Amino acid sequence: MDHPVFARHVGGKMEIASRVPLASREDLSLAYTPGVAVVCEAIAQRPDLVHEYTWVGHAVAVVTDGSAVLGLGNIGPRAALPVMEGKAILFKGFAGVDAVPICLDTQDTEEIIRVVKALAPGFGGINLEDISAPRCFEIERRLIDELDIPVFHDDQHGTAVVVLAALKNALRVQDKKLNDLKIVIFGAGAAGVAVTRILLAAGAGDVIVLDSRGIVHSGREDLNSVKRFLAAETNRAGLTGGLAEALYGADVLIGVSGGQIAEEFVARMAPGAMIFALANPTPEVQPEVAARHASIVATGRSDYPNQINNVLAFPGIFRGALDVGARRITEGMKLAAATAIADVVADELRPDAIVPSPLDPRVAPAVAAAVADAARREGVCRL
Amino acid sequence: MDHPVFARHVGGKMEIASRVPLASREDLSLAYTPGVAVVCEAIAQRPDLVHEYTWVGHAVAVVTDGSAVLGLGNIGPRAALPVMEGKAILFKGFAGVDAVPICLDTQDTEEIIRVVKALAPGFGGINLEDISAPRCFEIERRLIDELDIPVFHDDQHGTAVVVLAALKNALRVQDKKLNDLKIVIFGAGAAGVAVTRILLAAGAGDVIVLDSRGIVHSGREDLNSVKRFLAAETNRAGLTGGLAEALYGADVLIGVSGGQIAEEFVARMAPGAMIFALANPTPEVQPEVAARHASIVATGRSDYPNQINNVLAFPGIFRGALDVGARRITEGMKLAAATAIADVVADELRPDAIVPSPLDPRVAPAVAAAVADAARREGVCRL
Repeated sequence: MDHPVFARHVGGKMEIASRVPLASREDLSLAYTPGVAVVCEAIAQRPDLVHEYTWVGHAVAVVTDGSAVLGLGNIGPRAALPVMEGKAILFKGFAGVDAVPICLDTQDTEEIIRVVKALAPGFGGINLEDISAPRCFEIERRLIDELDIPVFHDDQHGTAVVVLAALKNALRVQDKKLNDLKIVIFGAGAAGVAVTRILLAAGAGDVIVLDSRGIVHSGREDLNSVKRFLAAETNRAGLTGGLAEALYGADVLIGVSGGQIAEEFVARMAPGAMIFALANPTPEVQPEVAARHASIVATGRSDYPNQINNVLAFPGIFRGALDVGARRITEGMKLAAATAIADVVADELRPDAIVPSPLDPRVAPAVAAAVADAARREGVCRL
Repeated sequence: MDHPVFARHVGGKMEIASRVPLASREDLSLAYTPGVAVVCEAIAQRPDLVHEYTWVGHAVAVVTDGSAVLGLGNIGPRAALPVMEGKAILFKGFAGVDAVPICLDTQDTEEIIRVVKALAPGFGGINLEDISAPRCFEIERRLIDELDIPVFHDDQHGTAVVVLAALKNALRVQDKKLNDLKIVIFGAGAAGVAVTRILLAAGAGDVIVLDSRGIVHSGREDLNSVKRFLAAETNRAGLTGGLAEALYGADVLIGVSGGQIAEEFVARMAPGAMIFALANPTPEVQPEVAARHASIVATGRSDYPNQINNVLAFPGIFRGALDVGARRITEGMKLAAATAIADVVADELRPDAIVPSPLDPRVAPAVAAAVADAARREGVCRL
């Protein structure tokens, strides 16, 4: 407990604050009984007013079951809480979104869905967090279908959005086109699936995904429904095998596995390759090793250049969605977020500066505006 | 929407605030990844550390299903939210407790129990609010049994504690003893049942309870289990009938019904009677009418003297319970809270000043200290 991080955590990292005065009897009677009854009655008659006269218009539940926390694995809901509190203060600090950690004492898919649906009336959005694959796919899909507020599994889509932003700028640096690249995604969990989806949606043509058993291809008989989707939509050359086969001549490697990749495999990539090794705290390929075989290297770490950090995405995405009353977060809104993140530093690009700093104050407002515009264009807004 | 209360509610009444800085990369890496992982691992190994290194040590969920909101009835979870936000800022303002509204989209007893149990790991206590009787009794009892954090239905016990505090001081003013009084409780919902229980626990001897069908007595065959308890424990004279029979010669009338009582009934009370007419916004007996037949009159309203307001109780009760890691809130802790509230103004008593002002800053600290002491004495503390 003598690590400096404990001192920062005594009593937790967040608290509630009042937005109205409580100094007089009149204050009390306006904020609480009897005055508040007038507002309750108005909402009872017109439920949409809940967005205007409560914090629902800017409040998000950050929901976890503690099953896949950072690189720590299934540590349970209590041990996950410091991460959720961290997320909450980032939401507030970067985008003024009020987020509440909800740490669930269940890892049953149906139970999680039931609980989130039950508590949804008090929130304007649901950020799913650190829920393990493949349960996270079903939970998110069902909640998107059954709720009319944004539901967003950040481990999937936050990562995917920032990866796409980084890749867009890497392509600008190298003057290449997405559709011309051979892209290898190492890892088929929550992040790997979402990165694959967004790259396909953005126009990538040749994507190869590997899980712990090697290249995902349609000849495999051990695939769940999500991986069957991957097999159908990727690997157009019909490759089989493992990293050696996948990385031969590849232009881009995106590591989202938590595993390790030996240098001999990375050495097989094409000239001018890009390596995004996102496992934390230990990247799939050490940056020094990656640099011997790639022109552009990114990690998830703050102590190396090109940090792929979800904080570039989730605060602005929810801010934008809440600002226009979006009922869901569409592929178009995610693509718009990636473009906005990339564009913030478009005039400052270098091989070691393809993404903004996580502290760059320009990012969240730009993302929010782009997401709001996309939501309006797609007609998913309540407002 | 031109009532001044709406202006106070635009955007809601509460927000999240960070307790740690987020200005540098180091701040970010201590509050979030990678630094936070060290704290997560510590809690995974020693779960009790969640009370020390997260907001669980001072965070409470304010849970409602919107079924019995103020005097408005079953207006649902969204329309209930302004009340829960009001409660949350009172928790913070009076006792530094961080409360989160949880408004549930279900009114099924088992489902409510399941959801509250599921989200309990992220909170240090559960304040049940505005859940209708008799479901509230079962929900509270089960959650107290199945969780090891304080669970407290404020409509029951908050009201009961403040009623007992007021009655203690009224007895001081009149130099009477609780055990000598004939006490009539008009209303057998959440508040009526809890007031009855706490008065019995405090030593009241002769209590008569009425529900919408009249005096509760053991000859009635329409009683649910809670009312059978009331029939067994009250009405020692075996009275039958209605208000006329109950109020004849009564010393104390406590109205917790939302209904109305005609003057002809009140006129039957004993000389020097006390009337606490707590329905809001319309007391069971108008204070002007009550004053013609009683020496001490209290209401739930802020615009009359002697306001019986739960805010005198719940912030300090939870503060005290959280401060010592109480696993539950016992009868002894509630009795201690009532005594503490009464004692704050013991030297300033008048017939029209038997309870502190809801804004009196001495109350919550006094209640918290008394509740913490009682919890320690009763051995229900984790710390």
